[in-house]
Amino acid sequence: MLKRYAFFLAAGLLLGPRARAQTTPPPAEAKPLLGFAPAAAAAEYQLETKFDAQLKAGNLRDWMKRLSAHPHHVGSPYDKENADYMAGLFKSWGYDARIDISYVLFPTPKLRVLELVGPTKYTAVLAEKPVPEDATSGQTAEQLPTYNCFSKDGDVTAELVFVNYGIPKDYEELARRGIDVKGKIVIAKYGGSWRGIKPKVAAEMGAIGCLIYSDPKDDGYGQGDVYPKGPFKPETGAQRGSVLDMPTYPGDPLTPGYGSTKNAKRLDYRKAPTITQIPVLPISYGDAQPLLAALAGPMAPADWRGALPIPYHLGPGPARVHLQLAFNWKTEPVYNVIATLQGSQYPEEWIMRGNHHDAWVNGASDPLSGLVAELEEARALGELVKAGWRPKRTVMFCAWDGEEPGLLGSTEWAETNAKDIQKHVVAYLNTDNSDRGFLGVAGSHTLEKFFNQVGRDVQDPEKNVSIIERRKSLDLVSGSPEAQKDARDRPDLRIGALGAGSDYSPYLQHLGIPSLNVGFGGEGAGGEYHSIFDSFDDFTRFKDPTFAYGVALAQTMGRCTLRLADADVLPFEFQNLSNTVAKYGTEVKALAETMRTDTEKQAKLLADKRFDQVANPDQPLLPPKAQEAVPYLNFAPLDNALAKLEQSAQAYAQARRGPNKLSDDRKKELDQLLYQAEQQLLSTEGLPRRPWYRHQLYAPGYYTGYGVKTLPGIREAVEERKWAEADEQIRRTGAAIERFAGQVNRAAAVAGPAPAQ
Amino acid sequence: MLKRYAFFLAAGLLLGPRARAQTTPPPAEAKPLLGFAPAAAAAEYQLETKFDAQLKAGNLRDWMKRLSAHPHHVGSPYDKENADYMAGLFKSWGYDARIDISYVLFPTPKLRVLELVGPTKYTAVLAEKPVPEDATSGQTAEQLPTYNCFSKDGDVTAELVFVNYGIPKDYEELARRGIDVKGKIVIAKYGGSWRGIKPKVAAEMGAIGCLIYSDPKDDGYGQGDVYPKGPFKPETGAQRGSVLDMPTYPGDPLTPGYGSTKNAKRLDYRKAPTITQIPVLPISYGDAQPLLAALAGPMAPADWRGALPIPYHLGPGPARVHLQLAFNWKTEPVYNVIATLQGSQYPEEWIMRGNHHDAWVNGASDPLSGLVAELEEARALGELVKAGWRPKRTVMFCAWDGEEPGLLGSTEWAETNAKDIQKHVVAYLNTDNSDRGFLGVAGSHTLEKFFNQVGRDVQDPEKNVSIIERRKSLDLVSGSPEAQKDARDRPDLRIGALGAGSDYSPYLQHLGIPSLNVGFGGEGAGGEYHSIFDSFDDFTRFKDPTFAYGVALAQTMGRCTLRLADADVLPFEFQNLSNTVAKYGTEVKALAETMRTDTEKQAKLLADKRFDQVANPDQPLLPPKAQEAVPYLNFAPLDNALAKLEQSAQAYAQARRGPNKLSDDRKKELDQLLYQAEQQLLSTEGLPRRPWYRHQLYAPGYYTGYGVKTLPGIREAVEERKWAEADEQIRRTGAAIERFAGQVNRAAAVAGPAPAQ
Repeated sequence: MLKRYAFFLAAGLLLGPRARAQTTPPPAEAKPLLGFAPAAAAAEYQLETKFDAQLKAGNLRDWMKRLSAHPHHVGSPYDKENADYMAGLFKSWGYDARIDISYVLFPTPKLRVLELVGPTKYTAVLAEKPVPEDATSGQTAEQLPTYNCFSKDGDVTAELVFVNYGIPKDYEELARRGIDVKGKIVIAKYGGSWRGIKPKVAAEMGAIGCLIYSDPKDDGYGQGDVYPKGPFKPETGAQRGSVLDMPTYPGDPLTPGYGSTKNAKRLDYRKAPTITQIPVLPISYGDAQPLLAALAGPMAPADWRGALPIPYHLGPGPARVHLQLAFNWKTEPVYNVIATLQGSQYPEEWIMRGNHHDAWVNGASDPLSGLVAELEEARALGELVKAGWRPKRTVMFCAWDGEEPGLLGSTEWAETNAKDIQKHVVAYLNTDNSDRGFLGVAGSHTLEKFFNQVGRDVQDPEKNVSIIERRKSLDLVSGSPEAQKDARDRPDLRIGALGAGSDYSPYLQHLGIPSLNVGFGGEGAGGEYHSIFDSFDDFTRFKDPTFAYGVALAQTMGRCTLRLADADVLPFEFQNLSNTVAKYGTEVKALAETMRTDTEKQAKLLADKRFDQVANPDQPLLPPKAQEAVPYLNFAPLDNALAKLEQSAQAYAQARRGPNKLSDDRKKELDQLLYQAEQQLLSTEGLPRRPWYRHQLYAPGYYTGYGVKTLPGIREAVEERKWAEADEQIRRTGAAIERFAGQVNRAAAVAGPAPAQ
Repeated sequence: MLKRYAFFLAAGLLLGPRARAQTTPPPAEAKPLLGFAPAAAAAEYQLETKFDAQLKAGNLRDWMKRLSAHPHHVGSPYDKENADYMAGLFKSWGYDARIDISYVLFPTPKLRVLELVGPTKYTAVLAEKPVPEDATSGQTAEQLPTYNCFSKDGDVTAELVFVNYGIPKDYEELARRGIDVKGKIVIAKYGGSWRGIKPKVAAEMGAIGCLIYSDPKDDGYGQGDVYPKGPFKPETGAQRGSVLDMPTYPGDPLTPGYGSTKNAKRLDYRKAPTITQIPVLPISYGDAQPLLAALAGPMAPADWRGALPIPYHLGPGPARVHLQLAFNWKTEPVYNVIATLQGSQYPEEWIMRGNHHDAWVNGASDPLSGLVAELEEARALGELVKAGWRPKRTVMFCAWDGEEPGLLGSTEWAETNAKDIQKHVVAYLNTDNSDRGFLGVAGSHTLEKFFNQVGRDVQDPEKNVSIIERRKSLDLVSGSPEAQKDARDRPDLRIGALGAGSDYSPYLQHLGIPSLNVGFGGEGAGGEYHSIFDSFDDFTRFKDPTFAYGVALAQTMGRCTLRLADADVLPFEFQNLSNTVAKYGTEVKALAETMRTDTEKQAKLLADKRFDQVANPDQPLLPPKAQEAVPYLNFAPLDNALAKLEQSAQAYAQARRGPNKLSDDRKKELDQLLYQAEQQLLSTEGLPRRPWYRHQLYAPGYYTGYGVKTLPGIREAVEERKWAEADEQIRRTGAAIERFAGQVNRAAAVAGPAPAQ
């Protein structure tokens, strides 16, 4: 909208005074709104203006202060207190609110010992030091100690090895330096992957223990002044966090694929496949420095080195470390708050909006920054209802518990209610921690155009442009060449794809529910994540002091909810999806091609002994391992499916340009075809070695965790050089895309014949 | 050679036992030798075998120990003692040896004060701490203090600003953060440019003082264990060094362009244009840390931050610094040792071999590692003479004094003897510090093919391949894509171009003498450079303990000297040059093109206010300055010249494939045309704003110092957006290349008609 206005203005200046009379911005109702007829769009805009008028930053602030007043992790008194409080709020706003309880495994530390036993001695402190400038940091008795949730118990002593981020390619570098971690304890930096990947890969490589520390280069003094002078991690700060193997399946490790109801059959926790194979503990850089300083052996590669004032050696040893961990393996209730506002016209179609409420400690940013926006959205909707409005479709507000240990609340709720969800849920709209700056949005590309219209209508609180336009500016100024090109040439912002990291996972990747995850960031960096310093004091000093972005988030997500709830026809669109999936196709083909030429190049270098000739005799560097040549894969099933997807998307777009007079029954039929289309992208078998993940377009990487893999079956097979599997996955992914295209064609048929040209 | 052998071997294995009989390597005399007829080549190989047999690592070790036993900077007793000692050695080996003296300005510190005066106090130590493990590090009374030579006197107090490497683009980043250094003292890291650029640019930007420190990330604990445990810079280590504005002209600042003879007319040192405009002092990271820690203001950009355990803020202030420097502005004699072996057949053609002998302190690596190889070459040649050999051409061994303060010895000698040099010198062969690992070679591309044949015949001491092949392996394994392509596709290793940094500058860039600079490196990294730790103990522990690479250097440079001295016709070749200059042409055109599209892109981003939209209100980042659009330049004069160069190079190559029976007079004529061809590349006017630099292909960058700029007139005009000057320089460079092509055509005509095809 702003761009078009600017265009008119410029044209006016060129044409002189008379023409300038035409430069008044077009009335708001002229903006097209996907799924709304023009008149309905005008009404919708009026509604949104009323909605915006309700939003009050002070409410966000008050709730954040209230909800973060005490640590509120799973099993804590304040976790339940918060759930009850929110249920009460929802009820007071006119919602039908309840608390759904699941019973999940939630281990907490009984014993944590970490010592350097040789050649020098050091006993790790393993405690974050409260600061007087932070009102809640001293609630030591209520805080969970620093630990990684779902580490196994263990008592190990061994030489230490520094493994950088502890991802597979780091071990390739170690192998080239003749270093094997078998029987050793590894120390990895946070970053480079989701934390749970580090102990998983370390165990695969034969390590017997794993430490994870936050290097000051990444979120300590290497980034800026440390807390409380600045927002970055002080010497004693440590990042708690789950190490559950969520890329295999999230949720209670004892009930894979089904709900953790009170009497559900449970695995023995000692046999649960998603609990780590080795003990793992997060530590501060204050505790890490003496350990790292005691290492000898080769220097770590230059880009592995952090900001501690020591040479970063790899080991192994002579540093020897004793790590002893024991946990209370208790089952705890998790309290999911579910608040419902019944739809007036299509009550069977549910719009779900969610954010978790549990935290590792006080959790002002994570998760309350997103949750308080959600609460304000719910309250504002309640006010609209009081003023006479009703949503056409049912709206549900969810506050999940147990996200931090492994999406426990949302996953168990999704598994318990899977059938209803697949039958009724139109879309799942998630937020989590959010601060200040740039829009971040990822999700189903069937909602991309819809979301672009939402973002076009929300103003950035700091700049005189929409949140979409500001994000495009970021891409143009500092994006990758690809992002720059998109921002220049593509009308819509290309939204990201979802991996893992918050509660959308079970809805999108297990059940095929179209999902979005939205937040703001880039101007609120700090080192407080999952520490005692993620507090109200920290948030209001360094994150979003005025809650202006919290309000912008409520405007954004509120619009998503309102438009999905009230659209004449659900605002799904498939050409943007088709464009993006075609891009994924190009990427996986390029990946195979690059691997082929790289493999050939490396084979030649190996045959010519080039690596031997380069190696420094004083710092041995073995040649990389020889790799099998990359065969040509049959991408035809994918290419054929992409062609069909494109045709179907076009057909649907054309049908929707028609006169659009559908009976209520046909609208219902069309809606259902639309919102269940994404389910066609699930495969019954799921992904190789992790059947819980069924979506063929998006999954968290098996070896990256949070990081998404698009076309995951194909991409990971290629990356892992499993050629037969790659061929099989190309067929399976192609079939899913064809099923999806079929459903879109059916939707096109229901939407009506194409208009005469 | 190895590659061909390997090829035969592989072929043999395929053909079976009978064929394998043919796999004996071809006899050495079958290797072609540029400038030698086949029979002469065979004799040359025999001579080189005898030469190699003379080389003794023990001599290099003994001389290094002797010459580094005391500090031997300009003006020190041991500097003269070393010169006398070497002159004696040369005489004992049968050379006509003398010491040529120039009288040069050489300031040394009288007063050095550096204090943090607010908000906290700190007085800098400004002294390197000797270590017991290093025998010479404690010779404190004989050592020059840590200082930058040719800093002006000064007494300034001001707020401090951190400027990264202190190069022009760093100031653009500061400007975007609203930081102006006018009236401030800047602190810059060593690295990113030659050190003299830092005070030069700081003064241009209005700063009143400059500190330069070695960040531990670059050569301290960030690279490995510090001295004496490892080779890297300890907390008190500081890098001495010249800050003379050598990119304007090197040599005595008081005698620009002419020799500093005893009674030469001299400038007043207070008006010498190459002495800094502001006081500048090098400091250790131990002294830098309290200063940097006292800075506030915005964080430095991520890639500016070093390895000190502090947040790197930019300032300005609140740190306030007092810097006071005063120097003894004395004139000192510099002692150039010149040893000559008269040529038997072409005594008027001189082959010059040089390395400096002065050091900042004990200088084991810099410069003695190269100098002891040169001495051994001279001794071995002396032995060949004793056994009856005489070089056809005159051979000169030079040991320059005063290189460290600004190429004082070599430049004044070159300026004093300019006419003779341009008349007689065939080539100048330079070395300087050298350690272990990979061949590094740069110089005139007319000698590229010649040098490749030399390097082909010298074995790497650690690997079973030639030094050329090992270097190619490095390029193949970790070179830039361009270097990889060259190493794959180009028969010859592409040698580098010479900027500045050692004594070849006056010969190549001022007088147009074909030059080479050679050394080994990559496996001897450390932090000892220009400190008290560049000692015999350090070198023999960490650099080249067995002197095997010192011997390889002597083999390499000895072959260069022997082949140039004894060739039938001088081994110049022009097709490799033509290929490389064409590449430079492509580069400068691409540079202009990239600047054009970048400028357009930036103008669009500015017009659309994209930078404003991205800026974080809490950390203001101003838009970059608008740039004038880049016009299309007329590259035709360059393209036409390049075409003529290619034709002339081809003509000469074809002529040399002829029967090659030239009279002695014609050979002399041809030789002279060949070795004076490079002088055609000089322009009378020199480069803009620095007429001393006359070579149109190679110059040190005006704003990079050591770093070479090829086609410097054109490239720097484009980089600095001086479009009229760029057009003028294209014409001038084109004219120089055409003059050169004309001389090559004359050489082709003398070499004889092309053979019948």
